[in-house]
Amino acid sequence: MALKYEIVKKCGKSRLGKLHTKHGIVHTPAFMPVGTCATVKAMMPESVAATGAEILLGNTYHLMLRPGADLVQKMGGLHKFMNWDKPILTDSGGFQVMSLTGLRKLSEEGVTFSSHVDGSKHFLSPEKSMEIQYKLDSNITMALDECTPFPATYEQAKKSVEMSMRWAKRSRDAFIDRDGYGIFGIQQGSVFEDLRRFSAEKLKEIGFDGYAIGGLAVGEGQEAMFKVLDYAPGLLPEDKPRYLMGVGRPDDIVGAVLRGVDMFDCVMPTRSGRTAQAFTAFGPINIRNARHREDPRPLEEGCDCPLCKNYSRAYIHHLQKCNEVLAVMLLTWHNIRYYQRLMAGLRQAIEEDRLEAFCQEFYANQAKGDIAEI
Amino acid sequence: MALKYEIVKKCGKSRLGKLHTKHGIVHTPAFMPVGTCATVKAMMPESVAATGAEILLGNTYHLMLRPGADLVQKMGGLHKFMNWDKPILTDSGGFQVMSLTGLRKLSEEGVTFSSHVDGSKHFLSPEKSMEIQYKLDSNITMALDECTPFPATYEQAKKSVEMSMRWAKRSRDAFIDRDGYGIFGIQQGSVFEDLRRFSAEKLKEIGFDGYAIGGLAVGEGQEAMFKVLDYAPGLLPEDKPRYLMGVGRPDDIVGAVLRGVDMFDCVMPTRSGRTAQAFTAFGPINIRNARHREDPRPLEEGCDCPLCKNYSRAYIHHLQKCNEVLAVMLLTWHNIRYYQRLMAGLRQAIEEDRLEAFCQEFYANQAKGDIAEI
Repeated sequence: MALKYEIVKKCGKSRLGKLHTKHGIVHTPAFMPVGTCATVKAMMPESVAATGAEILLGNTYHLMLRPGADLVQKMGGLHKFMNWDKPILTDSGGFQVMSLTGLRKLSEEGVTFSSHVDGSKHFLSPEKSMEIQYKLDSNITMALDECTPFPATYEQAKKSVEMSMRWAKRSRDAFIDRDGYGIFGIQQGSVFEDLRRFSAEKLKEIGFDGYAIGGLAVGEGQEAMFKVLDYAPGLLPEDKPRYLMGVGRPDDIVGAVLRGVDMFDCVMPTRSGRTAQAFTAFGPINIRNARHREDPRPLEEGCDCPLCKNYSRAYIHHLQKCNEVLAVMLLTWHNIRYYQRLMAGLRQAIEEDRLEAFCQEFYANQAKGDIAEI
Repeated sequence: MALKYEIVKKCGKSRLGKLHTKHGIVHTPAFMPVGTCATVKAMMPESVAATGAEILLGNTYHLMLRPGADLVQKMGGLHKFMNWDKPILTDSGGFQVMSLTGLRKLSEEGVTFSSHVDGSKHFLSPEKSMEIQYKLDSNITMALDECTPFPATYEQAKKSVEMSMRWAKRSRDAFIDRDGYGIFGIQQGSVFEDLRRFSAEKLKEIGFDGYAIGGLAVGEGQEAMFKVLDYAPGLLPEDKPRYLMGVGRPDDIVGAVLRGVDMFDCVMPTRSGRTAQAFTAFGPINIRNARHREDPRPLEEGCDCPLCKNYSRAYIHHLQKCNEVLAVMLLTWHNIRYYQRLMAGLRQAIEEDRLEAFCQEFYANQAKGDIAEI
């Protein structure tokens, strides 16, 4: 296969793995920071690498509009363009077309939409999405699907997943196999087990390098999501990576790893860095809160990121109050580092057969909350 | 004296020097990046140090309002608060009170003003400014003066400089001498030579660790500024550093070094980094310009900053179009690095007795302009 996935160790449903790509190895369970417009917002790529991140997610929708796939290709591909020489996964563009654009027309052939930037008309189909992701030189291409909105009736979800599976086949057919590159299919089916099973069967029939679980984290809540994750990963091939798209908060990720998921992406750590929210082992902190004004302590005791090593909460609070860019830079760095520390902890716990204990400690610490620490 | 200044070499009116402070040596001619609110905007302090900057300027006005001098003192001083262990110079706050605040009342005693942040009332006097700068733990304290507005009649300028000299004496008296710390007096007198002479005499009488030239770069234009600089530095003590406040563009700095100035500060490199403007050896570049859209070349051939080493103009143009923070981060870094390369070039040229040739080449390259390079 074009992408090799080794499962090194199992612990319950959870797996420790290595995904080999042309641009290096991704150790799973892995979290992918989001680099929407060919940049992880407010981070130098060398800083992203320093957090331990081994793979980034790029957004096909944003990149096709600005600067355009042809320009990225002309500049030597996305890795070179953005100075990131590790693996890159790109989404198919479908999700953003549905969530960010206004006027759009969906048909069996594809989707016509107006750019949220300048209103210009564009067309996206499975073939077009493959072509764009090829030009971007993405290591992991995602099949184009329709992310079934939530809530959906059984009939709506069925109609939607059926079309997505036809698009999955067209995506696979249009994808050009290359060594160290691969394509992932996306399971849909909303919260209906038989539709999830139907989707998994179709995807396996087509054959992919990895399998994503789509249509979750779209408003159904953690309980409903975990109910689906109790069975959905098990419907997918055992020997391929499983990627839960757009998830999530730290406790979502821990719960999903326990249920057999290997890969994640989410804007949470980066977006929160822009809204003064920090993730820590002791729960989230909003640094804008007045209680931090004269606090000489680091944000999170024991964290090795530049924010926690070199600054007081009082300083970050001050930067945030003054709308200083450095607040965003440091909080984003901390948050990505926190997510990578969490993933490294999960991997080590699987390695050492103590995942359950790790998760218990994780939940207990999160429940303590930061305020309890003072 | 509390601050030791060594003049290592002279070349015409220009001097190569070393200013010894408690937090390290500043090699002059030196350019100080501005860290208004206890941060050089969009830069990690280790990145500022990596550009070659040896000293920062902090703004007393901004810091007294947010987070307040008492808090900074409580946090161990400005160096520790902002994670910058090299020298810091703070201005007196007077200039910002005059340029940023609305309601204010100036008297012999000091100035009452309303904060531009929340409208709260504050009072600044020579004694108060000294106290704040002491609490900030600034290595170089600036005397409080009135920056004479331009244009001013002779009578206005005379009245203003006379009060500034009385304030200089009060500042000196209130300053607490410490090893490795010092206070600079500020020469005023607008564009009138006899007032500049009067001011210099008064300051020498009082005795300072260094002497600033104030009241320039306030709208008089480069020609008028250079006319003053033809004589003003020579009125100040030969054996002390001379600091031209708020200057300037690269060609302003080169002209002022030729006229015997040792230190500079300006928001130009940092502010320009936020407006897509880059300084280069071949003149300024606006990266937003459409001609950069598909340009694979680095911003400035031969520059060793991360922007020029790792990215194309096309990429920076793209980031800028998308309002990405990384554009600001990289352009600011480049601009500060450009200024530091310029200062290092000036120092080396003085060292090697070829300042005139250096300046001729500088002006010739600037005149070429970037467009001529394509």
